Order: sequence, then C-alpha cells, then structure tokens
Amino acid sequence: MKLPIALSNRHIHLGQKDIEVLFGDGAKLTHFKDLSQPGQCACEEKVDVVGPKGEIKGVRVLGPARGETQLEISLSDGFKLGVKAPIKDSGDLEGTPGVKIVGPKGEVELERGVIVASRHIHMHTDDAEKFNVEDNQKVKIRTSGQRAVVFENVLVRVSPKFALEMHVDVEEGNAAGVRNGDLVELINE
Amino acid sequence: MKLPIALSNRHIHLGQKDIEVLFGDGAKLTHFKDLSQPGQCACEEKVDVVGPKGEIKGVRVLGPARGETQLEISLSDGFKLGVKAPIKDSGDLEGTPGVKIVGPKGEVELERGVIVASRHIHMHTDDAEKFNVEDNQKVKIRTSGQRAVVFENVLVRVSPKFALEMHVDVEEGNAAGVRNGDLVELINE
Repeated sequence: MKLPIALSNRHIHLGQKDIEVLFGDGAKLTHFKDLSQPGQCACEEKVDVVGPKGEIKGVRVLGPARGETQLEISLSDGFKLGVKAPIKDSGDLEGTPGVKIVGPKGEVELERGVIVASRHIHMHTDDAEKFNVEDNQKVKIRTSGQRAVVFENVLVRVSPKFALEMHVDVEEGNAAGVRNGDLVELINE
Repeated sequence: MKLPIALSNRHIHLGQKDIEVLFGDGAKLTHFKDLSQPGQCACEEKVDVVGPKGEIKGVRVLGPARGETQLEISLSDGFKLGVKAPIKDSGDLEGTPGVKIVGPKGEVELERGVIVASRHIHMHTDDAEKFNVEDNQKVKIRTSGQRAVVFENVLVRVSPKFALEMHVDVEEGNAAGVRNGDLVELINE
C-alpha cells in the first residue's frame, strides 16, 4: 500500500517567549500558508541561525507556537553551522545542542533544541487500520525510480489529528530522488 | 559481504584546454592529496560555479585532467545554481546542461557537463570474483544503524585499476547516516 511523501526543508518551531525576543514584545506568528498536517502552518517570519562555524539565513518559522523552541536541520546544515545535531524524534530535545537564533528585534542563545528530525509517517487513525500498523511501530518504506531506496526504521505516528504523509528531510528525499507528493510503498514485515 | 563506502562532495574534472583558460596558459593541475582510486587525486586548484539562480564557491578540482570537463554536484546544489542536472554515470554527458566556471585567470561557459553522479561501486577484478558480480551489474547495498537504508540500482564497475569502494554523494551518505570508510553490505539477489 502506498502513501505520499514530503520533503521538510530546515525550519524552526518557536516558544512564545522566544517569539517575543526575536520579533518584539507581544509579537505573534503570522500565517503564511497551511501545511499538510491539520493546524500546522508556515509563517511569514524567518530567522537567521548562527553556529560556531557558519550561519544559515532565512530559516522559515512554522506555527503554531510550541512549548519549547526546536530547530530542525539536515546533517549538512549541521556541518555548515558547526553544530553536531543528533537524529531525534520531534520533541525529544534531551541532550541536544543549542545555537544562536537571530530575529529582527533580538537574539536568543538556545541552550538546546537543535535536531535532525527522524524520518516518520503521520497517519490518521483510520489510515493506521487500513495499513494495519500501530502508533510507534517501525516500518520500511520503499521508493521507486532511478534512485530507488528502502528506508528502514521509519517511525509511524498515529493520531486522529494527523493526515497521511511520510516526512523526510531534503537530503533523504534527494537521495531517494523523490519530490513532494510522490507515492511510496509501506512495507510492514 | 561488506565493502567500504565514501561520500563524494561536489567536485569538478577539467579538460586541459579549460585548465589553461581558468588557471592561465600552460597551467597544469597541482597534486594536493591522493584519492582512494589509484591514480586519482584532489588538486590544490578550486573554481567557482555560477548558474542562473546562484553560485557555489570553492569547488575542488580533481585530477588528472580529463578529455572533457565534468562537474559533479548534488540535487540540492542544482536547485541552488538553478541547473537541472540529471542523475548520470560519470562520462555520460549527452544532453547534460552547462554552467559557468570561474577560475583565477578566466572563465569557461560550459555547454554541457553538469551531472549528479549515479551511486556506484568501484571493484578490482579480484574483488568482483569474491563478490561474484560482473562489470555493469546492478546490485543493492544495505547500510546499518539508525538511518539504515537499502540503495537499489547500484552500478558495479570492475577494473584491475580500481580499488574496492562504493561512492555516493553527500545527500545519499547523510540520508543513510554513513561516514567515509563505514562498511556496507552488498546484496546480490
């Protein structure tokens, strides 16, 4: 059975306190466009990220605001910044490195929060039944074409709030030669 | 059976005529360090690459000089440059796009030669016997660890001049979470 894949470019989720430091007292995020997951959006706001070895400008902020700021980058971004970001599930920020975030009104020196997000699948509860998988299960995903790969250890996350979609970072997507919306095959062995 | 993997960063092979345009009349490439394949080396020389949408500075020249200039980049590099580079085997430049190459003494407007190199395995003839594969065969390669993947459609190239090594680009290597010298498994089905 197949599902759509999407490539996540580097982005940042911000805590409300950091939003106000970066964008000014009382600032709130401004909706730019909806993302595929219900309630999630890309925001007008962007920030610069400064590490010990380099910087990356114009990193998109995603909304809504979260409890804690989390920067999601690729391994290549980490080399460029000079930050050794571990491959982690979103929200699992224990032991992750920090970095400096620069906005138009101020800077935040993050103590932690930089990760390379583990590839994962969002599934609505109804889709999980169809695919016969459970929340937190690991599956394999096969892509097709010239750069066909099988991704192992892909985490399935099930919720009535999710829409069916696999998320990989840009390096994973390019390594597999896939583009947003391409269909990939779930292998549940 | 296992073999070592290596990540190829963006690089360029230059024809002698282009070497002289970029680095001056009578210029020759300067050895910087040996690469794993016998007779191949990284050179002291670097060039800048300029596409319609962006540029990449400091692209390493590999030696020795070739019959025709060939720039090997990642899909992400192609997006940054604004060049739609196809995934091709090295040397197969039919129908590939060009780009502007800038050296310290001159510029070359390439008419063709920009590719994303297909992942492949170099094998010495003796290794091909041990692995029971032939020149031009396609195999699968499995990596291990948190980001374990199976790369399908991996071209095997056999020659008494080759040393045993799989080559992937940086995006493929990062997608698999591997580093230079990591061992990967050949699956010959």
